[in-house]
Order: sequence, then C-alpha cells, then structure tokens
Amino acid sequence: MKIIVVGGTGLIGRAVVKELAPRHEVITVGHKNGDKLVDITNRDSINKLFQDVGQFDALIATTGKVCFMDFARLKDEEYRIGINDKLMGQINLVTIGYEYIKDHGSFTLTSGILNHDPIRGGTAAAMVNGALEGFVTGAAVEMQRGVRINLVSPTVLVEVMEAYGPYFPGFEPVAAEVVARAYTKSVEGPQTGSIYRVGY
Amino acid sequence: MKIIVVGGTGLIGRAVVKELAPRHEVITVGHKNGDKLVDITNRDSINKLFQDVGQFDALIATTGKVCFMDFARLKDEEYRIGINDKLMGQINLVTIGYEYIKDHGSFTLTSGILNHDPIRGGTAAAMVNGALEGFVTGAAVEMQRGVRINLVSPTVLVEVMEAYGPYFPGFEPVAAEVVARAYTKSVEGPQTGSIYRVGY
Repeated sequence: MKIIVVGGTGLIGRAVVKELAPRHEVITVGHKNGDKLVDITNRDSINKLFQDVGQFDALIATTGKVCFMDFARLKDEEYRIGINDKLMGQINLVTIGYEYIKDHGSFTLTSGILNHDPIRGGTAAAMVNGALEGFVTGAAVEMQRGVRINLVSPTVLVEVMEAYGPYFPGFEPVAAEVVARAYTKSVEGPQTGSIYRVGY
Repeated sequence: MKIIVVGGTGLIGRAVVKELAPRHEVITVGHKNGDKLVDITNRDSINKLFQDVGQFDALIATTGKVCFMDFARLKDEEYRIGINDKLMGQINLVTIGYEYIKDHGSFTLTSGILNHDPIRGGTAAAMVNGALEGFVTGAAVEMQRGVRINLVSPTVLVEVMEAYGPYFPGFEPVAAEVVARAYTKSVEGPQTGSIYRVGY
C-alpha cells in the first residue's frame, strides 16, 4: 500500500514508519523535514500535499500541537492552539484527503489518554482528544466507498518520561514501538470507527 | 442558590428553569429573550453578562449551535460553526465565569448523544460533543475552591421528533422534563467530572 505518515518525523511517527516500511511504500511527511512537507494549520499546504502525492491507500496522522497550562490561565486563545493544530489539522487532512484516497483506504488519527485520565494542565489536550474521538465516531458511519477511519489514543510514552514524567505521576508509560502496532491494526485490519487505547 | 441558565429560553432550558425555579433564584439568559441577553460567541458579551449578574452559585448552559450536514460536504468552515458556538461558547462561559462563581459553585454544560451513537450528517456535532466531554473531564480535576463541573448528554428529545425524527431512525426519545432533572443532580448533588447520559 501507499501510506502517507503526517508527523512521520516525530517520536510516534518514526516508530510507525519503522513498523510499516518493510511491507509498504511509506511517504514520510513533516513540518520541516521528511519526503514531503506540510503545515497542517494551512489548508492550501494540505491541498498541495495531496496534489503532489496523488492517490493513496492510507493516511496516518501522528502530529498536532496543544497548549499545556493550568486551567485557571487557559483562555480562548490557548484552547484555539489545539483546535487549529491537533484538531482541525487532523480533520482537514481527512476532509481534503477524502477526495484523494482510494476505495477501501483508511485514515488513522492520533489523540491521547488525557480525556480519560486527566492531569494538571491538561484540560485543552483533553478537550482536543475528546473532539477527535467524536469526529472519528461520527465520520466512520458516513464515509463511502469502503473508506475507513480509526483513532489511536496512547498513554504517555516511555521516551518522554525523563522530560515530562513529573506531569504524569503514577502513569505507566508505553514504548513508541508498541503504540506503532495500533496503526498497523488500523491500516491492515478491517475495523472502522475504533478508538485504540494503547498502554491503558 | 443563584443560578444562571444560559439558553434558558430554549427547549431544554425552559424545562430546566421550570425544574429549578421553585427552589432557587433563577436568571434566564438568552440570545434574544430572557432576563439577560448574551451572545456566547462574543467574549465581550459574556464578560458583560457576568459583570451585570455578579457572583453566582451555579451556571447551566443549555445552548449551542452546530452544523448538520453530510460528511462529504462538511469542510473547515462548517466544523468551525460548532467550535465557535456550542464548544467555545460554553467553554468561555466557564473560563470567564470561573472568576465570578462562588466557592463550591457548579458549572453544568450540555453536549448530546451523537458522539456515542452517530447519525448521518452528525459528524460535526459528534466532534463538538466529544470535545465538551474532554473539557469537563479535564477541568474537573483542576478547578479550585470546591468549584465543580459536570456535563449533561441527552438523546434526542420527544419534543423535536416530529421535525427531526427521520434523522434519528430507531432512537428512543426522552422528554425535556426528564433531561432537566440531570441538571438538578449536577447543581444540588456533590459530583464533579460526571457525564450524565440521559435517555440512553
């Protein structure tokens, strides 16, 4: 299959590329590095990516920024960072990519644990994660031509515990390579509308 | 208690006002009618509402617009309708109201069934509902001074089945007065971070 991995230069994305590259044609897309570049907050940039890559079998998004900040300081602007980037960035990859994806192709998005297991400073992330779950649940029943969509929701990664561990007290981290296998399940399996919780 | 019901002129809001008015001082807030007016998409308008009403014990939001449209036609602009109105409208009521709410006060927001039980044309609604669930889950663990926050997620209402029934095939509707009792549970009970599914 021809698989586009947006965020393929990041921590989860690199593990996903490593997981899928032995069996598929993988196109790694990043903001600053990769086979192709995209700015997911810019729809012209997304359009250009798909015009460039053309038809494909699967799109995986492992990217998206949100603002971590104490609830009392989070205001409209801070919530909008996650809305414009992690949320609408991934949604626009799907709505625009829907015109280029082959019949029976799949989209796989990425959210995270924080809307199920909240932490201090994580309210904007929890909001965006919940939105992505709702979007995938809703879109899965409406997509035509056998196109599927699933979501991977990992807990905190082993690889970031040294830097972010104190924000996740008592959380059992998971390795990026374990998270990566959930994308294989989504891309190579038959499911749609699934939320894959990994490591929790 | 002094309770602000934003959307108190709508179908659910009127039932909530009827449910709470016998025991509390209820301030009905609407977009065009009510004791006070507010435009929830405008933060200046929200600020003005709270400056006008002053300290309060509970805020209930039973309002918010989203775009219902087939998935293939839903683009960035249509998702943003729900983001700017039902989602950020309710979130801004909380983040701004947080400075005016009394210790041990409560916020109660409203989402809906569609992120759990999706329908055709409901993807933007499902996205916004999921976002509100994530927000409430995240905010509940961060709020200080004993302030609480819960969410009511009703199924389709009996009162709208004549108009919208065909969009909800096989859905068992619930009466607005039944939905209203969930707001009493949130306001008068001790819970925080709860998602009250009503009628499903």
